[in-house]
Amino acid sequence: MEYKILNSDIHNADLSKLSDDERLILCDELRNKILDVVSKNGGHLASNLGVVELTVALLSVFDYKKDQLVFDVGHQAYAYKLLTGRYDRFDTLRTKDGISGFPRIAESEYDHFDTGHSATAISAALGYARANKIDQSDKTVIAIIGDGAMTGGPAYEAMNDLAHSKEKMIVILNDNEMSINKNVGGLSNHMSKIRMSSKYLDAKHNTENFLTKKMPTFGKPIITFMLAIKDFFRFVLYRKKPTIFENIGLVYYGPIDGHDVKQMIETLNAVKKVNAPVLLHVCTKKGMGYRYAESNPSDYHGVSPFDLSTGVAKKSPDVIKSFTDYFSKKIVEIGSANKDVVAICAAMSSGTGLDDFAKKFEDRFFDCGIAEEHCVTLAGGMALAGKVPVVAIYSTFLQRAYDQILEDVCFMNNHVVFCLDRAGFVGADGHTHNGLFDISYMLAMPQLTCFVPTDYEDFGLCLDYSVNTLKGPASIRYSKSSEYRMEIDHDIHKPRMISDIGSDYAIITCGTIQREVDKVVQNLSNKGLKGKCINICQIKPCPTDEVLDLIKDCKIVFTVEEGILHGGFGSMIRNELIDKKFYSPIHTFGIKDSNVHCGTIDEQLKATGLDADALTTSFLNLIN
Amino acid sequence: MEYKILNSDIHNADLSKLSDDERLILCDELRNKILDVVSKNGGHLASNLGVVELTVALLSVFDYKKDQLVFDVGHQAYAYKLLTGRYDRFDTLRTKDGISGFPRIAESEYDHFDTGHSATAISAALGYARANKIDQSDKTVIAIIGDGAMTGGPAYEAMNDLAHSKEKMIVILNDNEMSINKNVGGLSNHMSKIRMSSKYLDAKHNTENFLTKKMPTFGKPIITFMLAIKDFFRFVLYRKKPTIFENIGLVYYGPIDGHDVKQMIETLNAVKKVNAPVLLHVCTKKGMGYRYAESNPSDYHGVSPFDLSTGVAKKSPDVIKSFTDYFSKKIVEIGSANKDVVAICAAMSSGTGLDDFAKKFEDRFFDCGIAEEHCVTLAGGMALAGKVPVVAIYSTFLQRAYDQILEDVCFMNNHVVFCLDRAGFVGADGHTHNGLFDISYMLAMPQLTCFVPTDYEDFGLCLDYSVNTLKGPASIRYSKSSEYRMEIDHDIHKPRMISDIGSDYAIITCGTIQREVDKVVQNLSNKGLKGKCINICQIKPCPTDEVLDLIKDCKIVFTVEEGILHGGFGSMIRNELIDKKFYSPIHTFGIKDSNVHCGTIDEQLKATGLDADALTTSFLNLIN
Repeated sequence: MEYKILNSDIHNADLSKLSDDERLILCDELRNKILDVVSKNGGHLASNLGVVELTVALLSVFDYKKDQLVFDVGHQAYAYKLLTGRYDRFDTLRTKDGISGFPRIAESEYDHFDTGHSATAISAALGYARANKIDQSDKTVIAIIGDGAMTGGPAYEAMNDLAHSKEKMIVILNDNEMSINKNVGGLSNHMSKIRMSSKYLDAKHNTENFLTKKMPTFGKPIITFMLAIKDFFRFVLYRKKPTIFENIGLVYYGPIDGHDVKQMIETLNAVKKVNAPVLLHVCTKKGMGYRYAESNPSDYHGVSPFDLSTGVAKKSPDVIKSFTDYFSKKIVEIGSANKDVVAICAAMSSGTGLDDFAKKFEDRFFDCGIAEEHCVTLAGGMALAGKVPVVAIYSTFLQRAYDQILEDVCFMNNHVVFCLDRAGFVGADGHTHNGLFDISYMLAMPQLTCFVPTDYEDFGLCLDYSVNTLKGPASIRYSKSSEYRMEIDHDIHKPRMISDIGSDYAIITCGTIQREVDKVVQNLSNKGLKGKCINICQIKPCPTDEVLDLIKDCKIVFTVEEGILHGGFGSMIRNELIDKKFYSPIHTFGIKDSNVHCGTIDEQLKATGLDADALTTSFLNLIN
Repeated sequence: MEYKILNSDIHNADLSKLSDDERLILCDELRNKILDVVSKNGGHLASNLGVVELTVALLSVFDYKKDQLVFDVGHQAYAYKLLTGRYDRFDTLRTKDGISGFPRIAESEYDHFDTGHSATAISAALGYARANKIDQSDKTVIAIIGDGAMTGGPAYEAMNDLAHSKEKMIVILNDNEMSINKNVGGLSNHMSKIRMSSKYLDAKHNTENFLTKKMPTFGKPIITFMLAIKDFFRFVLYRKKPTIFENIGLVYYGPIDGHDVKQMIETLNAVKKVNAPVLLHVCTKKGMGYRYAESNPSDYHGVSPFDLSTGVAKKSPDVIKSFTDYFSKKIVEIGSANKDVVAICAAMSSGTGLDDFAKKFEDRFFDCGIAEEHCVTLAGGMALAGKVPVVAIYSTFLQRAYDQILEDVCFMNNHVVFCLDRAGFVGADGHTHNGLFDISYMLAMPQLTCFVPTDYEDFGLCLDYSVNTLKGPASIRYSKSSEYRMEIDHDIHKPRMISDIGSDYAIITCGTIQREVDKVVQNLSNKGLKGKCINICQIKPCPTDEVLDLIKDCKIVFTVEEGILHGGFGSMIRNELIDKKFYSPIHTFGIKDSNVHCGTIDEQLKATGLDADALTTSFLNLIN
């Protein structure tokens, strides 16, 4: 499609020279391009549509080749990418070797931090600001963070630090009243109050103008004086209350309309001159400009390819298409039968499949905001008070709570059930979102029972056992892909013999990568090699004696897992078997280099040598 | 010593029935008892002295046998322990099988959460409050948290959640203007302003009285109305500004004098009736009642045994007595030579040895508050902007930043140097403070170079190499105990042959546990067994080929480490050697059960079978 302003050379254009009308056209074109590509490739839609005007305004005021913009989470950087040298390759968004769905320093010198997890942008930007200060550089540093991410503790830690040390820096709070779901928490209520107070804006506007236009650049002592005057204006004349950001010590501007490019440019030009940390509160609408996304921003937060004219996803959903769907039904069933069950999530009731539970058991469901640390400690407290908390968090995000899982749950042997969704490769979101580390860190936790179900029947048994039978902490990790159905007796505590046609080798595995392993068994059999294939669901405590019984005649053992090798399933099996004096060679297969970028899950398996063909070749080399 | 009120039966007394004078006597006696025991056993002094009156007031108003008090960090729970059934055993504080220096659910049914790490109390208490609400129980839940811990993100996450969901709960902010060092951050400035506004207190006091005394218990709709009235009084009549806590949605009371038992009891009685989340701001003096601690609270935060009359520690410090001392000098030397070096800590400039650096290079030192997550992401940002951040955090606390180390530093290959102090056993602080997990999780991080120095010369070389030669992330872990000096060529990158008297066995180890291993070598030699002993400093990337060369003739291999076995040094060595087809038996020794409680470091080694005698016995069993 031909655009009027948006083109392959746009990154060389000086947006500050565009007319107001041209900027509006550019915004439309950016939006069309984003819709066009995301409807084909899938991606983060609503958040990216919401910041088109903000991005154009930012790049009209700041020089992206010099100044440093850091996007929090990064699922709102598409317009930025299109304007900073990635227009030509944008069609490759989220595909193998293509443009990442998140900022990525390896992709462009204009991306300043790899993101994906929430609430890091202020810290990272403060790092740039402090370095600039030491170097006496005049680059402007800008962090762009959503109101959802503002519920994350690290954002607060960074504001607390910044407000004290007072580096010149701009924090743009992109307030769309959403995290991924509707935003929750005291801060969110506070921001609603700010937004609703329209008089506020007028009153502020006058003082801001007075402050910024009359006295453009000023140092620390003058700032103190100016802020006192500002307080005077606001509290004596207008009787206005300070926001949380001002309480903590930031200079606060806003709220302003994040779809009014002209007003934003004016404000940004004023803010640019303030020699202190500024928080600029910008109100945007998630999904802006695409009616389906506007009216249902949660569903259009992250999307699969869809039909642009109808907004309908191209793949029709199966009855139970994923572990998440299965979880969604099963946890309601378990919660109905056991009134002590409570469910906890971190701003992802929909993604983790807890929406139905939340509707049915309102008083036993807790969405804590994007706050994994708090979620886990809260669960520890509730368990001690007699409840059975089920904490549903994606594998990659639970990394946030390593310390809390250890100290606040496992050391005390608290009965908390961790459900780790999206474990293993996740496809197009790439390396920051892959759930490859959880087996390694969960196996380190004392007193924790760990499960890796392969099909839904496994999963149901694990959930039921963890909630209703076990008395200590448990974790269940499951993949983004759908189940790999096994026609076996589903004893989750014992190793399961999947196939037994000889003793040339044994393969021990867990989880849905059984899909690849079954193909390997077939491949090896075709080469005349007959062995055993064992699947383990309860990987800790490991049923080592039973495994030994099954493999004792095998000359060589392979382990296969969809996770990192260090401290992983294979490493654990190897240690367990050697401790029991099993000395046949054991070879472990998993992920060595965890920096695995976007692509399909199959492509990611292939890139790490974990597809059936690569595994077959590797095994053959080792057997011969 | 005989006390008038404090005695072994105090836990059965009803403190609400004491007279004001008796309460003052009780406070004196508690203080004396704490001073008496801590001067002998060491422990957290200043923080415990500061909350004596607060604890007496709390137990005069609330029923500790029914209500639930959760202490943040827990280094202020001594008075509570003395009053809740642990008076008789208090002399065993922080010793093997004795009373823990922190709350511990296994020790008493009146301890409600194991603590040690900051900023968890509000989450844990909210867990209790939510369970109580579901159970329709009338227990009051109280979280006691210091202003230092309030800089921690999880505390904010919990307040955000609590303020939204509005469970009845009391958060007591124990504001002593300190974390371990002088408190930092925007929040701290904000609280100073509140404290300094004395008129504020009077104005508030009137409205509070109006609110709480006239209308004792009220529900949600009435609260909204009452808060509006409160706002009216405060903003229209008194023109007072809302605190950050009110902004977020908590009911705020204070500040009140935390050493005035009478006023506190009155206030707590009022607060108790409010059917909403309340934050009560109490001002205390850290070290109160012991002049040396009052005038120097940082030095008396955590103490070794000391002379009560002079305040002087009983052990005289050596010139360089610890890795921390060595680090303190070396980092100044490195920072002098390399102007890109910046140092970052989380409220522990003194504990980590950064005080001198901070004084000398004020503009290159950053104390970020108790905010490990933010520290690490900040370091990632500064590294990308061309600085070389040295992040000094105790091993146990760095657990907090697992996700940030991975996503914000290692994935991007950012040049950040992590200095993990207090790695391995830490003695009297017990299981929540032992640094046993870091080798396991650090080895999982992509692109990270990991060092475990054994003596100061090693450490100096590691620091110098990590800062000045390496281009990616590095970690250096070192123990609380002093160096174990090795008379060898200090090549930190290659395995070092410590002794080589035969091939009956090989021991491979890292770090100061070499001290025990050398004794084992002697013991085995006495039994006629002659082997090799190898020490590795750079454990990742592991110099596997060189290790293989050294041990190839050995019939059996042992690894020894002061850390957990899962994913640890031994597990890594075993995997490396087997991957290179070394098939002699390899046995790994480290910590299986990480729930190792207080005692001396030697006692902790013994408890886990890692002392020389236990290791000798184990090795002999395996060799024969």
